[in-house]
Amino acid sequence: VSSAEASPPPVEPGALFLEEIREQPAALLRLLEADAEFARVADEMRAREASTVRMAGHGSSDNAASYGVYAFGLLPRWTALRDSISLTVYYGAELDMSGCTALVLSQSGRTPDVVEYARHARRRGAYVVAFTNDPSSALAAEADAVLALRAGAERSVAATKTYSNQVAALALLAAHVAGEGEKFAAGLRAVAAETMPPFISSLEARIASVARPFAYAGRMFVVGRGVEFATAREIALKLLETCRIAAEPLTATDLAHGPVAALDSLFPVWAIASDDATLPAVVEAVERAREAGATIVASGDAASAIAAAEYRLESPRASLPLLTPLLSILPGQLFASALARVRGLDPDAPRGLSKVTLAR
Amino acid sequence: VSSAEASPPPVEPGALFLEEIREQPAALLRLLEADAEFARVADEMRAREASTVRMAGHGSSDNAASYGVYAFGLLPRWTALRDSISLTVYYGAELDMSGCTALVLSQSGRTPDVVEYARHARRRGAYVVAFTNDPSSALAAEADAVLALRAGAERSVAATKTYSNQVAALALLAAHVAGEGEKFAAGLRAVAAETMPPFISSLEARIASVARPFAYAGRMFVVGRGVEFATAREIALKLLETCRIAAEPLTATDLAHGPVAALDSLFPVWAIASDDATLPAVVEAVERAREAGATIVASGDAASAIAAAEYRLESPRASLPLLTPLLSILPGQLFASALARVRGLDPDAPRGLSKVTLAR
Repeated sequence: VSSAEASPPPVEPGALFLEEIREQPAALLRLLEADAEFARVADEMRAREASTVRMAGHGSSDNAASYGVYAFGLLPRWTALRDSISLTVYYGAELDMSGCTALVLSQSGRTPDVVEYARHARRRGAYVVAFTNDPSSALAAEADAVLALRAGAERSVAATKTYSNQVAALALLAAHVAGEGEKFAAGLRAVAAETMPPFISSLEARIASVARPFAYAGRMFVVGRGVEFATAREIALKLLETCRIAAEPLTATDLAHGPVAALDSLFPVWAIASDDATLPAVVEAVERAREAGATIVASGDAASAIAAAEYRLESPRASLPLLTPLLSILPGQLFASALARVRGLDPDAPRGLSKVTLAR
Repeated sequence: VSSAEASPPPVEPGALFLEEIREQPAALLRLLEADAEFARVADEMRAREASTVRMAGHGSSDNAASYGVYAFGLLPRWTALRDSISLTVYYGAELDMSGCTALVLSQSGRTPDVVEYARHARRRGAYVVAFTNDPSSALAAEADAVLALRAGAERSVAATKTYSNQVAALALLAAHVAGEGEKFAAGLRAVAAETMPPFISSLEARIASVARPFAYAGRMFVVGRGVEFATAREIALKLLETCRIAAEPLTATDLAHGPVAALDSLFPVWAIASDDATLPAVVEAVERAREAGATIVASGDAASAIAAAEYRLESPRASLPLLTPLLSILPGQLFASALARVRGLDPDAPRGLSKVTLAR
């Protein structure tokens, strides 16, 4: 090992974050190499009739779990929930988890209460599956099965490729449970190999001009519903951690139940519009936000339906509608990358954060 | 009916909101008059073995549902979840809901997608229970059973007594399911009759001096965990709708997973500290927020454990630990009332909101 290899030269602020955004298609293709493991775990879930899916994770992992609610609800029509870690780990509630699969998500596999959750869930009868980048982690050791995320080393503190591989992993597992594994593996391959790369390039060419007007924004709502609520949560988290914007994710209907009252021309709204049954609710919520004077950024594959939008970052359609969140997260990630640069912040190392969160 | 009765004189801005905060003890005592109905519904839930509890609602109702996760998890040790309305209503996912109770929450009983959710859930085999102030509402008509919230007419747009009666109703129902109905009815009575009234008075005497320094705050995090996460969500919503602060609720651990990076001296944090197993996580999160320069407001029955707090609004202990959220919401409601006054806003009629939300 040469000394040059041992200590790589310092990189430009945000270079890792941007590099990892660009790596997402390759990371997804790596995940697909493990397709047979997903099929095997899905078989085991069916064999055990472990058809209530409890998901546990923090931050981006919890955002991906929001997507899992829809992947399992729409494919095998199973009930999936973001479980309370506090209930099990801190309060020690002895819930009966037989008939449950516990999908436990942690990039590092080292988040303490997530590892503890896995231990408790297994003791209470759940079939415990770890979703982690590190198959030798403490989390993996507590699980009945491990599905490696194969995102590869993630060096930027703000997660990108781990999030998208978690979303894809949840889709793939749910599809295998529903007997649609082959179809979804092909769909994921098409998204990763064909749709994502040109979309990333086209976004990179224009994202700075969309981000620049938000140089001084202090707060933002990010609105999404249904399968795109996970995207809204993840975009809001990227804006918080890399751009220091107080960005809050809301469903379209929740916006109308109170928060709309806070909007004005200094409080922009990012709306993710999907071409599905949730679109009228999103359109209606955006109209109310516009009436309050908010500037609107529209993304998603139905961004063109948001008449009131001042900026549009429309995503192409995915090969399967359930896979659109893999595309609709990209404008948010690249916007965060561009805006952090405008604001002089380093998304690779946000103040006060470290890559592995050991906080309770 | 005299004309004076038909059109009451205009009231001072925020007078209704404050009056309804003060009415909460009386509203809780009214709820307890219906104790036998809660016992009957609980018996039915047990008889049907409808032991997965799906809750659906928006805004404050959804915040109360966050509490329901703990009430059912800790008392009968049943799994309770905040269900996705989108999955059932918009996407039409045909989930099997046999073995489930659906608790559907709406103040007015008229929120369209919540009413539709109740209809779908019943068709899919759930035992559907409506929690509403209006037993003659569309929601009540779709349900197998109705538990009237008995909060009385709520005239301020920002909900207060409906929220606390929803929390109490969830506690009472969960307690009856667990065979602890009598104990919890007595506990609720003690909170309402003995603990709340002097606490409200003592808060009113000093809340303006705590609120005034936040006259120009534009954003805030509200941190709570476990049973107090519902309180964090509800305080954040009150601050948004009545004070136009971009207030986001976070669990203590989620704060450390990213959002802490956005904090500085212009971004205060409200922390709700409970004297339970979640306290170390809350203390640790607050310490990290303090390091980032944030001003800390501490409330909850363990507020004194938050050494870094600049302001403390400690609540008294409840007769039963699970009932503390009925007390810990009060500082948030009264702070919002006082701060709205300082900012010249009218919490009775926030801009852009109406009492009955008919938005999709």
